[in-house]
Amino acid sequence: MPVERSRDIAHVGAVELLSAVPDQTVDFFARLMGMSEVGRAGDSTYLHAWDDYEAFTVKVTGSPRSGIGRTWIRAAGPNALERRTSAIEAAGLGRGWADGEHGIGATYLFTDPDGHEYGIYWDSDWYVPPDGHRPALKNQAEPFPGRGANVRRIDHVNYLARDIPAIARFLPEVLGARLTEQIVGDDGVPTAVWYHVSDKTYDLVYTADWTGSSGRLHHVAFATDQREDILRAADVFLEAGIHIETGPHKHAIQQTFFLYVWEPGGNRIELCNAGARLVLAPDWAPISWTAAERAKGQAWGLKTIDTFHPHGTPPVDSGPVDTGPAGSSPVVVPR
Amino acid sequence: MPVERSRDIAHVGAVELLSAVPDQTVDFFARLMGMSEVGRAGDSTYLHAWDDYEAFTVKVTGSPRSGIGRTWIRAAGPNALERRTSAIEAAGLGRGWADGEHGIGATYLFTDPDGHEYGIYWDSDWYVPPDGHRPALKNQAEPFPGRGANVRRIDHVNYLARDIPAIARFLPEVLGARLTEQIVGDDGVPTAVWYHVSDKTYDLVYTADWTGSSGRLHHVAFATDQREDILRAADVFLEAGIHIETGPHKHAIQQTFFLYVWEPGGNRIELCNAGARLVLAPDWAPISWTAAERAKGQAWGLKTIDTFHPHGTPPVDSGPVDTGPAGSSPVVVPR
Amino acid sequence: MPVERSRDIAHVGAVELLSAVPDQTVDFFARLMGMSEVGRAGDSTYLHAWDDYEAFTVKVTGSPRSGIGRTWIRAAGPNALERRTSAIEAAGLGRGWADGEHGIGATYLFTDPDGHEYGIYWDSDWYVPPDGHRPALKNQAEPFPGRGANVRRIDHVNYLARDIPAIARFLPEVLGARLTEQIVGDDGVPTAVWYHVSDKTYDLVYTADWTGSSGRLHHVAFATDQREDILRAADVFLEAGIHIETGPHKHAIQQTFFLYVWEPGGNRIELCNAGARLVLAPDWAPISWTAAERAKGQAWGLKTIDTFHPHGTPPVDSGPVDTGPAGSSPVVVPR
Amino acid sequence: MPVERSRDIAHVGAVELLSAVPDQTVDFFARLMGMSEVGRAGDSTYLHAWDDYEAFTVKVTGSPRSGIGRTWIRAAGPNALERRTSAIEAAGLGRGWADGEHGIGATYLFTDPDGHEYGIYWDSDWYVPPDGHRPALKNQAEPFPGRGANVRRIDHVNYLARDIPAIARFLPEVLGARLTEQIVGDDGVPTAVWYHVSDKTYDLVYTADWTGSSGRLHHVAFATDQREDILRAADVFLEAGIHIETGPHKHAIQQTFFLYVWEPGGNRIELCNAGARLVLAPDWAPISWTAAERAKGQAWGLKTIDTFHPHGTPPVDSGPVDTGPAGSSPVVVPR
Repeated sequence: MPVERSRDIAHVGAVELLSAVPDQTVDFFARLMGMSEVGRAGDSTYLHAWDDYEAFTVKVTGSPRSGIGRTWIRAAGPNALERRTSAIEAAGLGRGWADGEHGIGATYLFTDPDGHEYGIYWDSDWYVPPDGHRPALKNQAEPFPGRGANVRRIDHVNYLARDIPAIARFLPEVLGARLTEQIVGDDGVPTAVWYHVSDKTYDLVYTADWTGSSGRLHHVAFATDQREDILRAADVFLEAGIHIETGPHKHAIQQTFFLYVWEPGGNRIELCNAGARLVLAPDWAPISWTAAERAKGQAWGLKTIDTFHPHGTPPVDSGPVDTGPAGSSPVVVPR
Repeated sequence: MPVERSRDIAHVGAVELLSAVPDQTVDFFARLMGMSEVGRAGDSTYLHAWDDYEAFTVKVTGSPRSGIGRTWIRAAGPNALERRTSAIEAAGLGRGWADGEHGIGATYLFTDPDGHEYGIYWDSDWYVPPDGHRPALKNQAEPFPGRGANVRRIDHVNYLARDIPAIARFLPEVLGARLTEQIVGDDGVPTAVWYHVSDKTYDLVYTADWTGSSGRLHHVAFATDQREDILRAADVFLEAGIHIETGPHKHAIQQTFFLYVWEPGGNRIELCNAGARLVLAPDWAPISWTAAERAKGQAWGLKTIDTFHPHGTPPVDSGPVDTGPAGSSPVVVPR
Repeated sequence: MPVERSRDIAHVGAVELLSAVPDQTVDFFARLMGMSEVGRAGDSTYLHAWDDYEAFTVKVTGSPRSGIGRTWIRAAGPNALERRTSAIEAAGLGRGWADGEHGIGATYLFTDPDGHEYGIYWDSDWYVPPDGHRPALKNQAEPFPGRGANVRRIDHVNYLARDIPAIARFLPEVLGARLTEQIVGDDGVPTAVWYHVSDKTYDLVYTADWTGSSGRLHHVAFATDQREDILRAADVFLEAGIHIETGPHKHAIQQTFFLYVWEPGGNRIELCNAGARLVLAPDWAPISWTAAERAKGQAWGLKTIDTFHPHGTPPVDSGPVDTGPAGSSPVVVPR
Repeated sequence: MPVERSRDIAHVGAVELLSAVPDQTVDFFARLMGMSEVGRAGDSTYLHAWDDYEAFTVKVTGSPRSGIGRTWIRAAGPNALERRTSAIEAAGLGRGWADGEHGIGATYLFTDPDGHEYGIYWDSDWYVPPDGHRPALKNQAEPFPGRGANVRRIDHVNYLARDIPAIARFLPEVLGARLTEQIVGDDGVPTAVWYHVSDKTYDLVYTADWTGSSGRLHHVAFATDQREDILRAADVFLEAGIHIETGPHKHAIQQTFFLYVWEPGGNRIELCNAGARLVLAPDWAPISWTAAERAKGQAWGLKTIDTFHPHGTPPVDSGPVDTGPAGSSPVVVPR
């Protein structure tokens, strides 16, 4: 491992979410999360968060099944892009170049070892607000919406995966990401891993899929400026009939203040606020949590809710469900 | 300029503040800002903010005059340290290696073109909480204080300098910092520059010194987790008789929520909260503000207070004071 | 004066605001303040704040001149109504009974000694949300809007008046209100008085009109749940091009956290948050502030802005303007 | 029932808490809740919250068993005191007059039908801050502490009682309190009742004691100014090793934002924030919640924790425990 961490991936750029009720999912992001619709193409709608400097933040695509489609990650420059595509090819995970879409240029497609699709790119058209919709301050992409949860930007993606150790090799070696925290089972095998590519404490998270499935999503998270925004958002979701799964509360791991809801398409969405917490240490030593420590619940004692581990998207249709080390009950999941 | 930004400086490590009333200045940081005293040496006292992973955050040194002593900046690794010390030497700004102090190893000393002293280092002993004072969560350096302003960590330093264009060459070329925002005079010359080395939107700021002096400090800033912490801190300062200079309000530049106070030694201290704002874009284009734009005041209209430009530490003893382009009046400044 | 305070007035019910641009004023309250339009009649539009149990909160009426029309105050019961109408008649301020409007029953109209129009009533139709717009929690009048400033309810009205001592006799003797705080000039004469009828620290406020005019409005205030709501609202107003006059800051008097804006019709609107502060003491002794104390500015040092005293609605068309004891400059006021 | 509500009780004045570890309980209130110690007498210590205009807020008394001692309620005046003592005597609940203590004058002692001890009084010495400890603003009793939870004042007391219908006759008829919300069982019998004497939405709450005991305490609640204060307090309690039972979350009933902890003596303490919610309506119609509605959990979905109903102080030593209509499990409670 290199002495100095790689900074080849600048940040997560955008995510594609699949929904069997795409109009409702778009409405969720536009009206309740406070994003703007910025384009349509085929079965897909592009949405933009007010402080995203790029052209879009979320792509909602109509699909019979829920889940995550592509995750876009932006390289730190053309050389960084070349280094990473070489590493991806060497790992046998590459799928080749594709034309970009909605403001993103040439994109190299690949999958992680669990089959989630990624696209890495450098060319990006910055968001340009339409006439009559310019922000009051010119260091901001889009006017502050004053609507719903007012989320500022995407924060991280948390995938479910069958083989966490394989992911824990892939992320540092192929993407240059760095582990900041993890849960390690009594057998010494990690069951959940938090990696960062930026100075944020995590950008890409993987959790063991208790159903043994591949390619599923646990949640996509969006950052609010203040914890109060999350409390206000809880009232917005309550009024709109959105299922609030758990929170607001503070994670013990990474200490993030959080709220989990299920958007109408069934995908779990987190609203998160990290306060001023960053991992700036160049020699950060990963924090490991044991199963016993996890059993204490979240930072202020909230117990993990029954749906939290088994619920992922797309739902698993049939067959036995591993109820996991904590003994939570399997649940019937929507759609 | 390289296509990909340098990441050789990880972050600002600590600052030394000079005070003619060091006991009162230490009390300000310990009791009102919520830091812990972690060591004494000669005329100096070391203080630690609860989320600083390193051994100290602020060093207060007794001195006849106020102002800033050394600023410590941490390299991203041993190679980064070597690259930067070579660049500093090449620029003729180096002063040579010194033994570290209080948890910091070998430190290369240098000055910026305006004479402010810096030390760059790689070796750093992580903060170890004393027995009986361990935090409840192991991903945190020190227990949350629950005292005063509860500042989490240092955020940035804002220096005054005579020649801003010289600084604007030094910061990118010698330190590898990147400009994110600036104020540019009608003559096209920058009068204030905001640079970052991390993903925070700024770490090192320089503003033109209207008195034409060198080596002075405008302020040192500390981050709180929420804007509410700053509002609460205002009540703490009010009760303690600390001079609140201006705020709370939101900067137009960088959009930071802020409060400025003068610690008992006369140095200006900012409490700041950036919300979830980061500059993650690898191809960020600096934002330039004109004098006319600045005259509009802060984001929500607060006008710049008379003392804001002339007050720096140490105070300027005599002679004419440039009242600056905005025509603010010079003021009598303490100590 | 009675040993036990009168509780004959339960609370301020609603206010009528006059605007030369009523559509813009209605848009301000609906879109930016988060109220719902609940009715129209002639040149008037009725708006409702989400936690107001009554039928409306603000009535906007088209008018060549800005200012306040009627203030509705609700009696604590039929006997209280009778006691107060008798006192009003005895004071020679009554104008007789009028039919109610939009959910308010028989209303006794009167003026204060400065000519502001009031209506006192007991009969009130509670707000009934339309089908498909019921709140999630049944102890709430209307769904939480998740829009703009999300103001919960009206908080207080601050009138300008020529003769404050006359007001200071009228409010306790005729309405049964109780003084909680006041500003007293060096001559011992009050220049601003804060009265409450509820357990809130103030409901009706009168400030000396430096122009010597009668019947003008200083501002109407609306309560938010948290200070954060006010900070968020500042961004909403910034984006919408609404003039932010001063704040956010904390009043020294009454300690309310505040923001003042001018709605498009020119009337000053305050957003306020009192935290958990109430005046529950049955033997509360009024707090008196001197002019010297007032000169210190607000709680955290903010100076009074030049427009704060002279700007009232409707604007005064011509003639000399008293610049007041603090020497603030007269300003040109809109509309 | 009278057309106009009685206002004879102004507010809850103070409470006495019993603790087998009184030094730890005093430390909890002083260091973690942010109160000041203002006196000692025998086995008792008096503590004062910074915005309490009276001489003390909590009296902690050493005792082999935990629980609540006396609750002081302040009459709205001498006539109100006389009316209420007559009503108490008529109800056969009076115990006679006692000398006051620590700033409270002559006090009439009585019990509610469940045996909880009350004292009603009019004479009260206002809190006078000691020299060198005066608040910066003169409309405040004590300096803002800037310590721990910074609670502003007592908010309400929630008692456990065997016979809720008896309580529901006593509170309006004897004390003149008014019902604002209640839980009503499927048999039409109330199992929990929220009454107010002020404009706050509740001051005195009684919940059915599932153990069938009498005279026990569910919790005493203290108000913070903002929800953020409660989130910060959770970190303070976490670091101090205080048991956080449940929250932070928002009650469906009364919509209060809450956090429940157990002080070292075992008594449950709530931190609460109501936002700007008040019940100002003179003709408020009580809100009734069914058991089915309660089963949905709190406002944002949090389920009632197992200890919430059975845990009261003092703990019940032996015998069968009614697990209540919701089927929660009995738990072993401390002390």
